[in-house]
Order: sequence, then structure tokens, then C-alpha cells
Amino acid sequence: MELRLSICVLLLLCAAKSSNGGKILVWYTEASHWINMKPVLETLMDRGHQVTVLVPSISLSMNSSEPSRFQYETFNIDVSLDVMERFVEEFLHFNMYEMDFMNPVQIYIKFIQLMNRYTMITLKFLDGVVKSETIMKKLREGNYDLLFADPIYAGSDLTADILGIPLVFSLRFSIANNWERLCGQLPAPPSFVPGSMSKLTDKMDFSGRLYYSEIRGTPTSACKMMGNADIWLMRTYWDFNFPRPLLPNFKFVGGIHCKPAKPLPKKIEKFVQSSGDAGIIVFSLGSMVKNLTTEKANMIASALAQLPQKVLWRYSGKIPDTLGSNTKLYDWMPQNDLLGHPKTKAFITHGGANGVFEAIYHGVPMVGIPTFADQPDNMVQMEAKGAAVVVNLNFMTTEVLRDAVNTVINDKSYKENAMRLSKIHHDRPMSPRDEAVFWIEFTMRNKGAKHLRVQAHELTWYQYHSLDVLAFFLVIDLLLIFILFKSCSFCFKRCCSRKTKRKAE
Amino acid sequence: MELRLSICVLLLLCAAKSSNGGKILVWYTEASHWINMKPVLETLMDRGHQVTVLVPSISLSMNSSEPSRFQYETFNIDVSLDVMERFVEEFLHFNMYEMDFMNPVQIYIKFIQLMNRYTMITLKFLDGVVKSETIMKKLREGNYDLLFADPIYAGSDLTADILGIPLVFSLRFSIANNWERLCGQLPAPPSFVPGSMSKLTDKMDFSGRLYYSEIRGTPTSACKMMGNADIWLMRTYWDFNFPRPLLPNFKFVGGIHCKPAKPLPKKIEKFVQSSGDAGIIVFSLGSMVKNLTTEKANMIASALAQLPQKVLWRYSGKIPDTLGSNTKLYDWMPQNDLLGHPKTKAFITHGGANGVFEAIYHGVPMVGIPTFADQPDNMVQMEAKGAAVVVNLNFMTTEVLRDAVNTVINDKSYKENAMRLSKIHHDRPMSPRDEAVFWIEFTMRNKGAKHLRVQAHELTWYQYHSLDVLAFFLVIDLLLIFILFKSCSFCFKRCCSRKTKRKAE
Repeated sequence: MELRLSICVLLLLCAAKSSNGGKILVWYTEASHWINMKPVLETLMDRGHQVTVLVPSISLSMNSSEPSRFQYETFNIDVSLDVMERFVEEFLHFNMYEMDFMNPVQIYIKFIQLMNRYTMITLKFLDGVVKSETIMKKLREGNYDLLFADPIYAGSDLTADILGIPLVFSLRFSIANNWERLCGQLPAPPSFVPGSMSKLTDKMDFSGRLYYSEIRGTPTSACKMMGNADIWLMRTYWDFNFPRPLLPNFKFVGGIHCKPAKPLPKKIEKFVQSSGDAGIIVFSLGSMVKNLTTEKANMIASALAQLPQKVLWRYSGKIPDTLGSNTKLYDWMPQNDLLGHPKTKAFITHGGANGVFEAIYHGVPMVGIPTFADQPDNMVQMEAKGAAVVVNLNFMTTEVLRDAVNTVINDKSYKENAMRLSKIHHDRPMSPRDEAVFWIEFTMRNKGAKHLRVQAHELTWYQYHSLDVLAFFLVIDLLLIFILFKSCSFCFKRCCSRKTKRKAE
Repeated sequence: MELRLSICVLLLLCAAKSSNGGKILVWYTEASHWINMKPVLETLMDRGHQVTVLVPSISLSMNSSEPSRFQYETFNIDVSLDVMERFVEEFLHFNMYEMDFMNPVQIYIKFIQLMNRYTMITLKFLDGVVKSETIMKKLREGNYDLLFADPIYAGSDLTADILGIPLVFSLRFSIANNWERLCGQLPAPPSFVPGSMSKLTDKMDFSGRLYYSEIRGTPTSACKMMGNADIWLMRTYWDFNFPRPLLPNFKFVGGIHCKPAKPLPKKIEKFVQSSGDAGIIVFSLGSMVKNLTTEKANMIASALAQLPQKVLWRYSGKIPDTLGSNTKLYDWMPQNDLLGHPKTKAFITHGGANGVFEAIYHGVPMVGIPTFADQPDNMVQMEAKGAAVVVNLNFMTTEVLRDAVNTVINDKSYKENAMRLSKIHHDRPMSPRDEAVFWIEFTMRNKGAKHLRVQAHELTWYQYHSLDVLAFFLVIDLLLIFILFKSCSFCFKRCCSRKTKRKAE
């Protein structure tokens, strides 16, 4: 009864709070990162806030001229769409087809080459904002209350610092947890917190430091600026990731974009219903992989053709020769509505975080074909929790893929584990979207959230590990030992010399 | 709008969930610890759960024969009330009057003596439960869904293990954060997480290990048992404590017992109103300190007599000779209702966590006279946050106390800081009571909360710090260096010997 009462009070408080609309600036973002931010921003608009999204003049996925509820602020960039598209293509090709056949040194060199190109493009984007007087003037005059950003797209920390407004991050992960650990001071003992991805160190630091110091006019670094973020909204939760130490200003809000399934379009529903008791399989390699080599596509298609289920495959490449009558290709499909359909038996996925969260939300077992970024990690975690089988795009055969799908459907434990994760996902004190909205509004209301920020940010590495204290005690100890030793040897000498004297007498 | 909708859904869910009443067993507890558990248990009863509280046959503050909403399960103990009262008296006297005049070695010896006596009493209590066949049979037959305990009262972990039911802790702190760190695996770098209290190590470990292994029949330790707790409900929050690393199964629910002020009893309200614009001061040294030496009481009373405010002093000792006409003594007073009264200007307190949380809740600046346990820590934190001035019971004079009270009232920054902490306290996603209730119910619904438990529990100390991995790499490195050295010296020798041979030719 009292819980209900206090929830009513909270409800009234929320209603009261929403009347005080703030102005939110959103850092530019793309693709799956935008999918996660959008529901939070929509809720914030519903609650009376004004939302302005920074969008580059040339973008792979964002279109500021499309009708939208958001205001857009477009900035010019000195990169052509062609350069960006070629980079993405090369990045995908390296991850999907080349990496498996390279040795670690080759991978490292190629990765660094790609990262350097990415850094160059990123800095061009950043130039478009912080070096443009027009944009900076507009942003200053906008009197924003908060900057909301995914730090994967660099420079939001610098901009928040220049504008002097609070900063809230929305982050899935950084390589080897570098940003969370080094900039956010999140404790991450490698013995039980697996480093995300390749464990390579962040090579951007020196150039980042140069650029950041140049713009800011005083020596600083990207990491120091990132450390100023008030709240880190981490897009994961303990249904998905292994539990790990956290900090009071890290909020785990994974699954923000998840929602109940809507009815399917008539044509798709008809195909789904035609599957009978066997049910359907949903298959997507994500929005970035639109194409496969003919050989791979044929191999996959003939595996799918051997399954008793009907298969819906998101694929816009050339139609494979081996495509079975049970498989239909789609340029786009309502993935969440399909995953929430009662006939869905399994999800074949590249293991992107958004898709995995949707599968967890609806309790669907998975077959993972991960290729890059967090995808291999994501699938390792789903496999460890018994909700997925993982296969390798380059080494799998028709039989391996077919057997993997049959396993997650016929071995009941996969469905049970997927349902267990789903229960954990739904059974939390607050929905991830409401939690994200709460902390963004909190930061606006209180002009920051510094009371959640650990003192570790102000310490050097040797202070953090108390090495100065240890060194002090070591010196004291050594001094004591030295004094003790000298005293003993002095006494000993006196004793001996007396004895010698006596003997001499 | 959507947030309101989802809160409504949450409300309905909560109502639905409450129909599934569980059976909760509560470990025995006393005094201020009980004050914190009671509101949570009341809410749980309102929501349809059955609550049974273990109560010793002889208790300082718990009375199982008083009418109550809770069911009590009484167990016999082999300690007299006299022994317990003498222990408490001696413990208080040591902390209040002796410690300030002792050197660290004397303090250490006395503290260990007192702790040993406390351990003896504790084990007698524990014997009353786990060694009593009658009680253990009753508990087994009770088919409880969960054990709720404050680990300050030892043995709940052992009992939960024997009964095979989930365990939820409610804890304020342990000495030097030992339990949280060593048993709960909570990361606590001493460079920015101040160790609670005296930083002495936990001396109970060996005897605890013996006792626990004897009862359980297999080698174990108190710490290992504590590590099995599903949820640790920590009775603090970031309005009070400095922010620090935490773990997913540590929930910070400080301020559970806080609530809005109710109207005062007529007599007290009349006295409060008689203070006019000057307002009132609320003064209590807590429920344990009922008496002071005549000298201290007179010194304090004459300080209070010099204040323009009216003072309400909770004191049941001999009436001090120097008592001013502005001061009234009370055996008991409605502390929370007084702190929430608009006329209240300051709170003179021993710094117990419950009182400090009530002051934060109502935004009242404090003068601290801390004596033992977490009280000195608590007041250090309030002082660091600018909401309190701290004085020492043994070294303060009438002037020092008077000036301290005048400072927190006349220097506006103290009130502002107290109000800032109050804002942080109230502005959280969920009330601490609702959060505590949520996680207790969660643990019952899911028969534990193991998905929030870090893998660190399963690691040895050298695995935790990855020393085994480091040692492995060190050996590899040394081997490589050795091989390199040997190869070089081999080549070198061959070259030299050839040269020598040639020379010889």
C-alpha cells in the first residue's frame, strides 16, 4: 500500500518536474548508436524538453531534411560521402573476410591503419563543430542545459567544456574498457572484468591531447575532458554482461530501445502463419552488412533450406542460387515485432548489442555469426549464459550452421536460459528508459551530478594505488632497521672490545 | 507522459506481485539497527508477506511480548541481562571518557578486550539459534523464502546456509570496510575510500572459522558464508557518504526510516512556538547515552543557556545546576517531527547514522559531539560537506559549544549545504524503502540474485590481482632472455674461437 502511495507521489513529482522544460543538445551520432538515443530523446520531448541534434552536412545514416520531431543543427564537414563509404566498406571487409586469415601482427598493423583513417575523419567532423565560429556561436546562444553524447563520436567532452554545460554520456563500451577505466575511473580488475574487444591500447591519446590542448588553449587531454562527464549511461545490464564493479555515476540502462512487439504487416504475418507448428527463424546480419560473397550467401542459403522452419532473412544482395522455398529475403524487416512473435523459435544474428537485447527482451535463443566491434564479445556472453551457439562466418559449413540452429531450437535449455535472461531484463526497479531520462533530468535540475563523482579523478596513478604512502612507510622501516642495526653493532663492538681488553690485561 | 504511463504499469505490476505473499525470517537485531529494518518489514507486511523476527529471550531493547504486527520466534540465550548491560556501560564509558586520554597501544588493548567479550556474548546468542534443535526444527519447518539480517549480529549467513534459503543483508558499515571488501568483494582503494573507523583488522576470523566449521561440519569461514549473501542493502547514500566503487548486488538505501514530520504533541508545540523568530535547537546524544558526568552536564547546560534559541534536550540524567530557562529536558522526544519543524535552526547530535539521515532529510545543519562506532566518521563527512561543526566531548568548553551552535545557525552556508544534501537525498529514482523492498522481493521471486554476484568470489587473492598471469609472463620473459643470452654467448664464443684458431694458425 505504502509503495503504491509513494509511487503515486513520484508520479505527481514527475508530472510537476516535466513542466520545467530544459534545452538538450545532442552530439552527432549514427546508425545503431542513434537507435539507442532516440527513445530517450522522444521521452524527454514528451516531458516538455526541447531537443536539438547536431548533424553533419554529409552523413551515412542521418538525414536532417526528413520530417522529424527533433530540431537539427547542421554543421559542415570537409569529408566526402565517398571517402566515408569506402572506409566503412574496407572496415567491414577486413573484419568479415580478412582478419580470420591474418596473424596478430598483420591484424595489428591493419587495425592501426584503419583507426588512423577513422581518427582523421573524426577530427574533420570535430573541426566542423569546434572550429566553426558560426556553429559555436549558435551553440553558445542556444543556452543549452545539457549535452547528451555517445563518446564513440569524439569531441562532445571538449564542446561541453567550452560551453560550460553538464555532459551525460551514453556508451556501449570502449576498447579494453579504456575510457571507462582510465577516464571514468571505473575499477576493472582484468581477472574478472573481461576487457572489451582486442585489448589494444588507445592509440589516439597523443594526437587527441594535441588537438584538445590547441582548441582549449591550455594543456589538457581527451581523457581528462571525458572524466568531466557527469553521468555515464552504460548501454548494458546484468542480463547481458557479467557483473562487475561500478561507480555511483555509472548507470546501467541496457535495453533502452526494447519494446513489446506490434502486429506484423499482413503479408509477413501470412508467411509467418504458414510455418505451422514448426515456427519461424529470424535472420539478420544488421544494417551495415547488406551484401555477402556469392559463395557465403549460397552456403548459408542451403543451410536454411534444410530447416523445417520458415526463415525470414534480411538480405539485399544478389538472390542466392541455393535459396530454399522456406526462406524469404527482405530489404528490411520489423525485427523487434518478429522476435516478439509467438511463432519465433530462434534468431540468427551478427550479435550487435541492439539485436541481442531485443532477443533477450523477448526470450529468443540465438545463433551468432559475429564479425566486428562488440559482436564477438556479445555472443561469447550469450553462449556462456547458455542462450546461444556461436559459429564463424569464414570457417562454418552448411552443416555447422544447420546443426547450430537445430541445437538452439531442439535443446530446450537454450529457450529456458533465454527466458531466464528475459526475466532478469524485465524484473528491475525501473525501466532502462525511465532511468536514463531520470538521470538526464537530474543533471539538468542540479546543473551537474558532481556528488556522484569519485575523488579518484583528482589523484595521480601512484596516489590512487597509495604508492606514496607505501614509499613513506618503506623509508621509515628502512631507517628503523638501519638504526637498530647500527645500535646493535655499536653494542656488540663495545662488548667485544671490553672482552679483548680484559684478555689483553 | 510515457514515464507516467510506465509508472502506472509498474504500480499495477507491484499490486499484482504483492498478491504472492512470501515468508520472511528476520535475524535478531537491536536498537538503531532495528529502527532501520522496521519500516522495510512494515512495507513488506503491507504487501502481503509474512514476517517472523528472531528475538533472544533476554534483550536490551527488543520486547517480544509487546503487541506488534510481527510474529516473534524467541530463542533462549545463556547470558544474563546484567552481563550485557555491564558490557554496554563499559563500552560507552571507554568510548566517551577514556579513549581520548589513552595512547594507541592502550586503546588497541582495551578495544581487543572489549571485542573479545562482545564475541563471547555474540557466540552465546548464536548458540541459542544454531545449537538449539528446537529452534532449528521450527525454522526448517517454517519454509521461509528469505533471511533478512544485519550482519553486525553474527550468524545469519551460517543459518541461511543451513536452511538453504537466500540471504539479504542490511548493513551500515564494518570496521575498515572489512566485510564489504573481503567478504562482499566490494572494491575499496584506500586512496579514496576511507576505511570506516579504526582500521583495525577483524580479529574474529580464526575463532569465527573454527565455530563456523564446527557447526557446518565442513571447513568454512564466516567471511565465505557472508560472501553468499545475495543482496547487500547498504544503509548509506551519496548525500551522506563520499562516492565510492560498488558492485551490482550492493544497493545504497540510506535513509530508509526517514519520513515527513508529523504535528508535535501540544505541550512541545507550545514550547517550540514560544521561541519566536529565534527558533529552536534539538539536542540528543542518542538512545544509548542516558547519562553524563555532572561536570559535563553542567558545562553543556551553561553553553545552551547562553543561546537565544529555545533548546529541547533529550536527557534523563540528574538535572544540571546550570540549566537555563530556555532549555527543557525530555526523557524521549519526537526527534524526526522536531527536525522537520519550520522553527528548527540546528541539531546537536552524537552523529548516529539515523539522526544524521533525519537531519539531511529535513535540511538541518548540525553540531556533532561524536563518541563511538561510526559517529566520528559520520560527523567528519558532514563537516567536509559544510553541513556541520564537530566538537569533542572531552576537550570542549562552554564557549566552544556555544560558538559552534552560533556558527551553524548564523553562517548561512551551513543551512545552504544542509539543504543541498537534502535535495540530493530526495532526488533519486526511487525512495530507499521502495528500493529495499524491491530487492528483497526480487530475491524471493527469483530464489536468489546470483546474476548480480561478481566472479571475484571464486578467485584466490593472487588470481584476483592476476599475479598468476604476471608470473607466467615473467617466466616466459626470463626464458627468452636466457635463450637470447645463451645464443649470443654461443655465437660470440664460436667467433672468438675461430679468430683464436686463425691466429693460432
